[in-house]
This record gives sequence, structure tokens and C-alpha cells, in this order.
Amino acid sequence: MSESLPLTKVVAGLPALVPFVGPETLERRMGRPFDVRVGANESAFGISPKAREAMGAAVEQVAWYSDPENFDLRTALSVHHDVAIDEICVGAGIDDLLGLIVRITVEPGDPVVVSQGSYPTFSFHVSGFGGRAELVPYRDDRADLDGMLTRVVESGAHLVYVANPDNPMGTWRDADELTRFVQVLPDDCIAIIDEAYADFAPTAAIGAMDTSNRRTIRTRTFSKAHGMAGARIGYALAHAELVAELEKVRNHFGVNRVAQAGALASLADEDFVNGVVAAVDEGRADYERMARDLGLTTVPSATNFVCFDLGSSERAIAALQALQERGVFVRMPGSPPQNRCIRVTVGLPEDRRRFETILREVLQQ
Amino acid sequence: MSESLPLTKVVAGLPALVPFVGPETLERRMGRPFDVRVGANESAFGISPKAREAMGAAVEQVAWYSDPENFDLRTALSVHHDVAIDEICVGAGIDDLLGLIVRITVEPGDPVVVSQGSYPTFSFHVSGFGGRAELVPYRDDRADLDGMLTRVVESGAHLVYVANPDNPMGTWRDADELTRFVQVLPDDCIAIIDEAYADFAPTAAIGAMDTSNRRTIRTRTFSKAHGMAGARIGYALAHAELVAELEKVRNHFGVNRVAQAGALASLADEDFVNGVVAAVDEGRADYERMARDLGLTTVPSATNFVCFDLGSSERAIAALQALQERGVFVRMPGSPPQNRCIRVTVGLPEDRRRFETILREVLQQ
Repeated sequence: MSESLPLTKVVAGLPALVPFVGPETLERRMGRPFDVRVGANESAFGISPKAREAMGAAVEQVAWYSDPENFDLRTALSVHHDVAIDEICVGAGIDDLLGLIVRITVEPGDPVVVSQGSYPTFSFHVSGFGGRAELVPYRDDRADLDGMLTRVVESGAHLVYVANPDNPMGTWRDADELTRFVQVLPDDCIAIIDEAYADFAPTAAIGAMDTSNRRTIRTRTFSKAHGMAGARIGYALAHAELVAELEKVRNHFGVNRVAQAGALASLADEDFVNGVVAAVDEGRADYERMARDLGLTTVPSATNFVCFDLGSSERAIAALQALQERGVFVRMPGSPPQNRCIRVTVGLPEDRRRFETILREVLQQ
Repeated sequence: MSESLPLTKVVAGLPALVPFVGPETLERRMGRPFDVRVGANESAFGISPKAREAMGAAVEQVAWYSDPENFDLRTALSVHHDVAIDEICVGAGIDDLLGLIVRITVEPGDPVVVSQGSYPTFSFHVSGFGGRAELVPYRDDRADLDGMLTRVVESGAHLVYVANPDNPMGTWRDADELTRFVQVLPDDCIAIIDEAYADFAPTAAIGAMDTSNRRTIRTRTFSKAHGMAGARIGYALAHAELVAELEKVRNHFGVNRVAQAGALASLADEDFVNGVVAAVDEGRADYERMARDLGLTTVPSATNFVCFDLGSSERAIAALQALQERGVFVRMPGSPPQNRCIRVTVGLPEDRRRFETILREVLQQ
């Protein structure tokens, strides 16, 4: 028997890496659970009561496959965003959709432009399909749109990824800047604008829903403001021709019935989502106050998390580890100079109090 | 602006096809729901009460991402199957796992051997990654293992797919035959043995769990006997080296929290699953009796569905359409001569009574 498995060249050459080590894995390593889970930008404010009821009812029908066309949800989303139903592709979270978008556009060896230190799962998909990430450093902790445009032109990339608001930094570009950016991109380049955190952003950051540009695709999720990260459901908004290409390859029965029902109900509960957004605003302000009290600064954020600036990667790593040892789960950006920060999700008021107490202890050491 | 989107060669060349049109789509076309849903091999016998309770509790925690390592479930599965935890890969249903297996093994243009008319979603993934399906006709309505081996050798395929028991026919090969088949396959060919219906099969059809062969991968699901089709959760069992390759590319946060909790609880409820299997046995016997009463034959089945032999594709198509018009959802195999049959899932006793009444009407016309 020959020793090597019959793998594709791309997969045979891939390292064994995961985009994120989950908090459960860290807990198993430590031998105890975290007391404060503010590391994965999950919502501390739960789900809509209407979503809870709909999901409970969906569990009763879970013996049936879900509708592979996600028809009811796409219909509701088409009204919500004032777009056509065939301009919407529902997936098992944005992660699923990012994988599909990379798959339809990236040949092995192709360059893909992305901010250095941006959302790791996107880069995981790029390398997973054999693409080559062309990394553009942040400028003042924000996506450097001019630098990205230049790199697209120089590299001949057919795909560029911008998270707006950004993860892990929380910063944002105004919609006007994004609109100019996609307008001047070469004709053979598709832009992903990942709007996972759109619900928390100022109005000026989120453009009107214009699906007439065939080369722009925007992604949204129910994981953040809607509080449904564990349900796995998100969607892409794009020109119908681009959505049709995703339809050719997506896992048609891949979105579960409980998530479909919950998303439909949550979308209709605007009061709940507005309440979450208000609570997150308050929590961000609380973190900013906390940082000032501790002699730290924060990076401006349009998301449900805040980056605390610790001045150096050494201090940030030490703080992250010390926080973990004291039962607090946070993360940090991966690339310099952004890795001078720790990234802290807005928790409940009591989570924030515990975080403050422990961070104060940690900084005093 | 140039007219064509920057797509990969494979995707640009794909037709706009889906593996299955869902019953909900048919209902929307007809303008009314089906009365009897016995077309998608879903379980009429629901979920374990323990799974229901666990899923309800998981909805309360759905704001948190699920464990990307599926650790608790893999631990339970490793005990259940007496394999190591790193010999298990959990995915969002077998469909998800089939896509991953094709992705890691099939380069554009590569041949992949599969029974003609076998599970359409597998062929959807093969063409979706640019592979070329090498179709081997059934022999007496069963997978033709000798024919498939010959085709693997002739074509140089690195991947072969056998569903055992088979879908859509319901027939099976004994484990001994499968074991010989995988032993004599060329060293550079991976065999997928899709055991979605294993719970319903006779003991002789399902081999002992041997993960020492690096080129065999078996797939299992919670969609059938466990009644969790809408939850989207299944798993692959294989040598750790092969599982490690799937780990490189899978969507790590892709399995939802509600499904993880439900699967873990259902796996522990053997009495429930045994009860479903007994009810399905009874339903299959009922369908066989029904066929005899109507002057028809059935194809022997080791699954939760039965193929009724109508003698010709014309009669099968006419019956399928007439059943649909009368509110009964069934499917039929896609290729001759198997398309002389309609495929009917075991429903509840009252579903079967209604099906019998309507089928009798349909046959009299």
C-alpha cells in the first residue's frame, strides 16, 4: 500500500490550522469553565422571545428537512432590505457564505486582497481553496481602502474582502468611502463587504442597499444583534447573477429548520433588536469609561466589542493570559501594531463589573 | 464594464441545477400543502423526548457559538463505535461531509465512480468541484460492486461512492462484500461507504467499525432513525489521517448548537431508536402487503422507505404525478430501469392508510 492519500494538490499542501480555537477547547485545557465569556463577540443579550418561541416550535418539526430555498426567510428579507428575493442567498452563517464566495471566484494561486490581521476565517477559506492572501496593513486601525485598491490593481486580484465595521478592530469606514472604493475597483474584481456588525454601526457607515453593482456582495448575520450565533444563519445580498452562481454550489439543505424559524421571527421583532443595540451602546460607553479610569485608551468601535489599547503586544499578550487564568475569555488581534490591543465583547453589566475588577488586578501586576 | 463575472473555470461551466426540488417548492407551485409527506425519507416517528429536552435547553444558549471541535458528541460517538475521537468528523449532515470529501480528493476533470441514479447530492458535489461522474448501472437494483471496481481501475478514479443500504433503491450488499470491495480497490482510491440508513439494515449488511483502512470513509447521520433531518448533523468515521485532511478545510463553527445537543441526547436514548427501527420494520411489511394487495411488487429494502415497482417509467411518472395532485409527496429513482419505481417513505399507520387509499384510486385510472 502506498503511503500517501490521493488528495488534491491544494489540500495536500495545506497546514493543519483552524481559524479559531474555541473557548470550550481552552476550558478543557484549563480544566475549568470561564466565568466571564467576552471573547467571541457573542450577544450577552440573548434572543428575542418571539425567536425563542419559533425555535421551540421548530424543534417539534425537526424530523423534516428544512426548505432548501429558505423561501419564507428570503421573502421577509426582501421586504426588509427592499431587494428582490433572488438577490438573497441564505447560508449557515457568514462563514459558510465566505467559503462559497471564495470557492466560486478563486483558482489555486490566485491573489485575494484582505487587511492584514482581519477576520481569520476568511483567510482560512482563501488558503483552503488554494488562494494567496495579499495582506494590506491597517491604516490608523482602519481598513486602508486606498492601499487595498492599489494592491488589487497590482496583483490582479479577482476578490477583495472588507469587513465594515471591521473585526477585530471595531473601526469603520463611511458608506460613501466604500461606495467610491467599489466603483473604482477593476471590472474583474468582486468586493465582499462583510457587514456582520451592521446593526451596531452609525447610519453613515452602512450604505443604502444597492444590488445593481454585479461585483459587490454584502454579508449579514443573525449571530450578533439577533443573538443567534449558535444557530448558524446568515445571508448575502448581491446582484441576482452573482447569487445564481452561489446557488450552483451551495449546500441546498444546509440551513437548519430551527435557525430558519428563529431568524424569521427575530427579523420581525425590531423592538428586541433595537433594545440590544441600545444595551450594546451603553456597554461600549461603559468600557470607554473603564479604560479611562484605568489609564488606558480604546479604539473607536461601531460593533458589540471594544479594543483596549495596552500599548504593546507584550503587555497585551500578558494581559490576555492573566485574564484567562482568572477565568475571563477575551481575544486579541493577530498582527502588529493592532496586537497591542485586547478585544473585549460587550457583556451584561455584571460581566463588565467582573471584567473591570479582574482587569484592574491584572494591570496592577 | 465587462459582462462576465470573474468566476473559476469550474463554476463558470456549471449548469444551474439543484440536487432536489424540496416539497415546499412543490407546495408553492401547487398552491396547497401536501397531506401525506412520504417522499424525503424523513422519520415519521419524530425525535427522542431526551433530544427534545436537550434541544429546548440549547435554544436558551443559542447566543453562544457551538463548540467547533464537537468534543462532547465525538467523545460519545467514540464510545458508541469503539473508535478514537480523532477518527470522527462531525458535519452539518452527510451532505456537508460528502462535499468536503469530494473537495479534498477531486481535481477538475477527475473521474469519480458512482452508481447511475444514486444519491443526487453526491453527484452535485462531484460536478460542483469539476469532477466527472463515471456512472455504473445497478445490477438487479443493487450497487454493482464488481462493475464499480472495474470502472475505478479503468478510469483511474481516486474516489468511489457506495450507499449501503442504497438510496434510492433501498437494497444492500452484505458487509463481507463491501469489505472485499475496499480491500481490492487500488491503493490510490478512497471509498465512501454512505451508511445513512444503517440503523434500519440487517446486521449482516453493516460491518464492524474498522478504521485501520486509510482509504475507507463511512458516513452516518442523525437525520433518519434519530428523526433529526431538519437539525443538520451527521458524521464521518475514518482513519485519523483522513479525518485530519477534512479538518483542514471544514467549516469549523458550522454545526449548530441545537443539533449538537440533540444528537448527544439522542445517541444515549437507545430505546427510542430501537422503537423507531421496529416501527419502520412494521411499516415496510405494511407496504409489502399493500403492494401484494394491489398486484404490485416491491424492491427488498433495508431502509425507512420502499420502492413500489410499477413496471415502466411511464406508469411510475404517471403515478407520481397523480399522487402529487391528490396531496401525496413521493419521489422516484432518476435512471432506467430503476425509474419504473416510486419510492415511498415509511409513514405513520394513518399516513400509510391514506397512501394506500389514494394509490388504489390512482392505479384504477
